[in-house]
Amino acid sequence: MGEFELLARLRERLPPPGPRVLLGSGDDAAVSVPGGATATSIDALVEGVHFRRETATPTQIGRKALATALSDLAAMGAEAGEAYVAVGVPPDLDEDACLELFDGIAALATATGTTLAGGDVTRAPILTLAVTVVGHAAGPAQLVTRGGARPGDQLVLTGEIGGAAAGLLLLERPELAVAVPEPTAARLRARQLDPTPRLAAGWALAAAGARAMIDLSDGLGGDAVHLAAAGGVGIRIEAELLPLAPGANEIATAAGRDPLEIATAGGEDYELLAALPPDRLAEAVGEIGAETTLTRIGEIYAGAGVEIRLPGGGTAVPAGFDQLG
Amino acid sequence: MGEFELLARLRERLPPPGPRVLLGSGDDAAVSVPGGATATSIDALVEGVHFRRETATPTQIGRKALATALSDLAAMGAEAGEAYVAVGVPPDLDEDACLELFDGIAALATATGTTLAGGDVTRAPILTLAVTVVGHAAGPAQLVTRGGARPGDQLVLTGEIGGAAAGLLLLERPELAVAVPEPTAARLRARQLDPTPRLAAGWALAAAGARAMIDLSDGLGGDAVHLAAAGGVGIRIEAELLPLAPGANEIATAAGRDPLEIATAGGEDYELLAALPPDRLAEAVGEIGAETTLTRIGEIYAGAGVEIRLPGGGTAVPAGFDQLG
Repeated sequence: MGEFELLARLRERLPPPGPRVLLGSGDDAAVSVPGGATATSIDALVEGVHFRRETATPTQIGRKALATALSDLAAMGAEAGEAYVAVGVPPDLDEDACLELFDGIAALATATGTTLAGGDVTRAPILTLAVTVVGHAAGPAQLVTRGGARPGDQLVLTGEIGGAAAGLLLLERPELAVAVPEPTAARLRARQLDPTPRLAAGWALAAAGARAMIDLSDGLGGDAVHLAAAGGVGIRIEAELLPLAPGANEIATAAGRDPLEIATAGGEDYELLAALPPDRLAEAVGEIGAETTLTRIGEIYAGAGVEIRLPGGGTAVPAGFDQLG
Repeated sequence: MGEFELLARLRERLPPPGPRVLLGSGDDAAVSVPGGATATSIDALVEGVHFRRETATPTQIGRKALATALSDLAAMGAEAGEAYVAVGVPPDLDEDACLELFDGIAALATATGTTLAGGDVTRAPILTLAVTVVGHAAGPAQLVTRGGARPGDQLVLTGEIGGAAAGLLLLERPELAVAVPEPTAARLRARQLDPTPRLAAGWALAAAGARAMIDLSDGLGGDAVHLAAAGGVGIRIEAELLPLAPGANEIATAAGRDPLEIATAGGEDYELLAALPPDRLAEAVGEIGAETTLTRIGEIYAGAGVEIRLPGGGTAVPAGFDQLG
């Protein structure tokens, strides 16, 4: 199957374009009429760096590529709009695997209301993906950047952290699975292989008045450093308030790692970290919806950097950008 | 130098953002206020498939990655707007080479009025680039798609063809250079290594009433097939009207190749092929500007497919998607 035939078969599988897209895949460029403001981000995933074909199916790889890109739109409080996907296909990825990869992308696109409006398929020695996503908002004031946190704001976090790092440990050292019940281990592996972009939570936090927001890709500590630097403020995190994913503590301990390291330096949870004015906290918790939870984990102060208050007293600084595994 | 330090150094080199971009690189996503219609396209370039580091400098690789993406916007008649660039950096591409690559991108961005609004830099076993470009127009009616050609329309071509294919032959077989004067050989190599997106010609053709347009990436024959199929029409090309790049004939002959094959099946010229109503031809030739030329090379007829009329009588069909080299 040549490139053109493969593209034609891929195009047949695409869901219909959303209302803003007048012309989708198949011309020199897609044509859309945005209206309001757009948020745009590009992310690349490379085999051997971001995923391994030994531990992730083509469907999972495709889904995760789109999920991590959409997570950046969630962190802006934007509505998912269009995605443009470039795939480098290696000789040993057969046509069925290639179609499965696009099925993974298409399934998450459908679930999130994202139009797959364009793409590029090329040969490559290893599997590579680059995904550009465009999100929409009524105007630029509705979008939430990393800057803008003010002293006195509350620091809030969606969902649970440490799950993706614990899942990666489980994928690389399957013998660790005995430390937790199998459904818990399966859930941790899914946090690594199949992250959920927190789009609805991002809109809710933006609507509730979040002043600054970021998604957790590098890890809570590192991403909090970005938020602090962008806002010119200090961030204090209370370690005992951190919502660790069930089983992450046990897997970390079984692996000889510090659970706090998993929680603060383990990346890829794709939860949202936001600064909220104190009087908006109750409203935000109420509006976050059924899909996830919202936990207050600290506060913003006049200063610089990130400090983590330990349960037994004393403080730590984030462990940096260590990626586990 | 880590990813974050490299990103910071890259950001220092970026030209200031254009008027539509409220927030550029450095947050979760770029924020812009488009207005009107947008044209968006993604292109990937992979080492060993689209370029070789033995024959192209990092600056040339960066320039070409953006140039080929912008060529898709030219083919829509869109104004260049924003670019988002993902780069996979291999271990043997040092920091200086990486900065040179971005300098190549930034130089063409500045020359074309394109804002580098976002990016992603990651490790990779080989050098990979993916570039998404967003172009703008007052409204969707101002953009020119591949469909829309009508019987009786004139087929026109900007610039010269066969130069990029002859340049590739020269890069791969340097001994062929004796067939032409060195300045001619240098110009042919530059057609391969440093293509020019025909943005101004694209606007001029759109303003002159072009009904359908495509850029020549696969080669005249193959891209004419796309134009014919999208419009549900036939395309007749007169071989004797084709504007072959100076020296391409001699290089093809020296390499034992048919010059007509170089002209019709040699890709990567990134010239524009358009269908014009017959009464708009003179106006379009006048408006094309000093940067390039416009040549009538054939016509549209009620039918299907592409036929090439040979100078000695008789016809040929396009040689398909053969990529030279």
